[in-house]
Amino acid sequence: MRKIKKILVANRGEIALRIMRSAREAGIQTVAVFSEADRQSLHVRYADEAICIGPPPSSESYLRIDKILDAARQTGADAIHPGYGFLSENETFAQRVEDAGLIFIGPSAKAIELMGSKLAAKAAVAAFNVPLVPGTAEPITDVAKAKEVAANIGYPVLIKASAGGGGKGMRVVENEASFAEQMERAISEATSAFGDGSVFIEKYVTSPRHIEFQIFGDKHGNVVHLFERECSIQRRHQKVVEEAPSSVLTPEKRKLMGEAAINAARACGYYGAGTIEFILDDKLNFYFLEMNTRLQVEHPVTEAITGLDLVQLQIKIAEGEKIPFKQEDLQMHGHAVEIRVYAEDPANNFLPDIGTLKTYKRPQGHGIRVDDGFEQGMAIPFYYDPMIAKLICHAESREAAIEKMIRAIQDYEITGLETTLGFCEFVMKHEAFRSGNFNTRFVEKYFTPAGLQPEHTYTEEALVAILAGTLLKSNGHRVAEGALATAGTTASKWRKNRS
Amino acid sequence: MRKIKKILVANRGEIALRIMRSAREAGIQTVAVFSEADRQSLHVRYADEAICIGPPPSSESYLRIDKILDAARQTGADAIHPGYGFLSENETFAQRVEDAGLIFIGPSAKAIELMGSKLAAKAAVAAFNVPLVPGTAEPITDVAKAKEVAANIGYPVLIKASAGGGGKGMRVVENEASFAEQMERAISEATSAFGDGSVFIEKYVTSPRHIEFQIFGDKHGNVVHLFERECSIQRRHQKVVEEAPSSVLTPEKRKLMGEAAINAARACGYYGAGTIEFILDDKLNFYFLEMNTRLQVEHPVTEAITGLDLVQLQIKIAEGEKIPFKQEDLQMHGHAVEIRVYAEDPANNFLPDIGTLKTYKRPQGHGIRVDDGFEQGMAIPFYYDPMIAKLICHAESREAAIEKMIRAIQDYEITGLETTLGFCEFVMKHEAFRSGNFNTRFVEKYFTPAGLQPEHTYTEEALVAILAGTLLKSNGHRVAEGALATAGTTASKWRKNRS
Repeated sequence: MRKIKKILVANRGEIALRIMRSAREAGIQTVAVFSEADRQSLHVRYADEAICIGPPPSSESYLRIDKILDAARQTGADAIHPGYGFLSENETFAQRVEDAGLIFIGPSAKAIELMGSKLAAKAAVAAFNVPLVPGTAEPITDVAKAKEVAANIGYPVLIKASAGGGGKGMRVVENEASFAEQMERAISEATSAFGDGSVFIEKYVTSPRHIEFQIFGDKHGNVVHLFERECSIQRRHQKVVEEAPSSVLTPEKRKLMGEAAINAARACGYYGAGTIEFILDDKLNFYFLEMNTRLQVEHPVTEAITGLDLVQLQIKIAEGEKIPFKQEDLQMHGHAVEIRVYAEDPANNFLPDIGTLKTYKRPQGHGIRVDDGFEQGMAIPFYYDPMIAKLICHAESREAAIEKMIRAIQDYEITGLETTLGFCEFVMKHEAFRSGNFNTRFVEKYFTPAGLQPEHTYTEEALVAILAGTLLKSNGHRVAEGALATAGTTASKWRKNRS
Repeated sequence: MRKIKKILVANRGEIALRIMRSAREAGIQTVAVFSEADRQSLHVRYADEAICIGPPPSSESYLRIDKILDAARQTGADAIHPGYGFLSENETFAQRVEDAGLIFIGPSAKAIELMGSKLAAKAAVAAFNVPLVPGTAEPITDVAKAKEVAANIGYPVLIKASAGGGGKGMRVVENEASFAEQMERAISEATSAFGDGSVFIEKYVTSPRHIEFQIFGDKHGNVVHLFERECSIQRRHQKVVEEAPSSVLTPEKRKLMGEAAINAARACGYYGAGTIEFILDDKLNFYFLEMNTRLQVEHPVTEAITGLDLVQLQIKIAEGEKIPFKQEDLQMHGHAVEIRVYAEDPANNFLPDIGTLKTYKRPQGHGIRVDDGFEQGMAIPFYYDPMIAKLICHAESREAAIEKMIRAIQDYEITGLETTLGFCEFVMKHEAFRSGNFNTRFVEKYFTPAGLQPEHTYTEEALVAILAGTLLKSNGHRVAEGALATAGTTASKWRKNRS
């Protein structure tokens, strides 16, 4: 047991603020580090002390282990919280923090390393009876043998080049009749693309859903799970809507998956907060995907349904405390949904729409939480992820949480740039989402920018303003204030009128 | 069953907004009414429609039943929510709303009337075995007989002039030896003050705590309670800090009091949201004080620990639905504390400090809710209650909720006027409050403005600015911008430095 007195948060934006708030509630001092681009950021103002660690981009500042350790030494911080992203899953960082005599608020470097390797992680969890997507463990080239494997797995199957990536040399085979031909094509594609014709055969999961379990381990060997989050609404493998609990899990399935998640954590002697990601098929079979060895962006939905503060729990575990409850003490209360609000233009292929928050008013009320790193008048910096905020709604039921989210989205006032609020409202109102009958292909299946078109027509003046704004932005210039102001106001009205 | 489509909210400020948010989540249109002083208010901007009902003061607008009913007719509203204060406990209003063919979102006019009379209310609930403070039901003048009554009740007892009020002709008698003398004095005081020498004898409750139960009844005869709130931290009978649950009730006591609260509601055939107020003595004996036949200011702490939306529940009940759960389904989750943030100066006898919110930044994070009716740059209007906001913190335990509240108070940035934030922080940090060992005399017992004195000394410049501001205000002039700005900033620093 070693009480933490001062935490350096090696991160920025909403997550840095979120961590500092919990530290402050626990009576712990906070240190911010920041890049030159973040000098005016809220996390810098919020911290008890703040140290500049270099210019953007991140490779010159937020990813510089030496500078971060220097800042810790300089301020006398005795612990470092890495947040998510940046160095949060870097085993070298975790090790060097510990080597410097500081507490790393996260898992051991060993666990990070093991789970950072997809193959090693799969082998480790498989030994603890965590189900993997059925398939060949080794690369294969023999077509007849592969066909046998495919028959055992059951169709449809996926043929993947073992040297592949990015979908190249990947084929879905629907039935045995076409298997040989497809495999030969895959081998020939893989050979010409990678100079290696060997492939893996695995089960092709139709209608996949992304279900992840929040787990916590302590340094005394205890592991619990804090139920699941469903993150099936994704755009190009980026989560955009998350919820807890999943609308599709039965209590029995939750128990099974929760036990598997705990086993996966045990497989790497895990302590701290971690997430076990599973893929769920349309028959509710689940398979281990990977483990994230850090706090997740979407952790607030778990906080909502459990009432726990996950950062405070991380701190206690890092100090050496035991998990202060047992699995059977945990209960879920109500339903929570989170959306990520990005400075991106859904009507323009989600291109980042960097600019200034001319108006920025958060929704309020019972069961509403906004985690952000901005306030009115601030600019979204060019250098980092363009997430403006996370909006979390918690209510008695899934339906009520969705209704609350729609209301909160409509109450959110942002002008000066385009955001994904309207896109998220589209998701909330979509029958497939509301009914719970959706999978990770929701966005590609249902969303077209046309779905966001306004019902009223623009005035000529507004069109000119929007056009001017777009041209100026696409030219890489700083946007002329006047044009942006008009365009921003119009865009906001447009969203409001749709609702 | 009659579905409500459009609600007129006959109120202003934070509670009008809070009601409209729930209405919107339920897909119901909203109508605001407003006085000329509230033209720019947030509740006016938030509503789908808004009607001006006259100038301030409230007797010319928010208390004008005719104008409010006109506004409902004009907008086609089919229901009226009265909020709290104003007409919320006016049986004539409730009756006239119903007579106009509209739904009153509240109890029957009869229940309001019955519970509005202290004597009738006590008689009604006593018939349902709800305990009252022991004492004489009828006025008494015979000293010997009174002494007998006092002996039965047990000392200390209170002698109250039956015609009295405001503490006049009221005496606490500690023991039998001094009873006769004290009673004679009380009779003589009462005779000279009111021309009526008759008195009541009742038990004097030492170390009283204010515990109230939230109840809900429906139009089908079902009544449940949603646990208690403790509101013992009061200043001149005004609640300033509320929490749920109470730190002092055992599960057995909660059950007993909850049943008594349900009985009290049954005594008046109650439906809708109501609150049964009890006084609790240091031996945990409880006695009925009164019933409030409306939504309470402090209802959010109940929403926090139950996860329920009380306004949505009110709406459903008004529509004729049954309460959608049973008593045994209800559970408390964690602990919630609310503070009321007033534009008042604790260092100056809590005098209202009307002005403009030069800076206004709300605290954020997990378990934090702010219900308010203002934003940065707005002025607190002179005509109404100077409450700026309610700040509600919800956490796993009472201790964590208090720590969160201290953090949230420190994060709240308000400049331009004095507030009670520092006073509330004083309460949160006080050993008596933290230990749970306090009663309704907390503020008079522990609080002195000196407790809020800054540790650092002011600069001469700051003192001049504060003095200038005070002088200008006390002269009834509008405050000179410059002086106020400086004074406001200084005051804010003062608060921040203390923490």
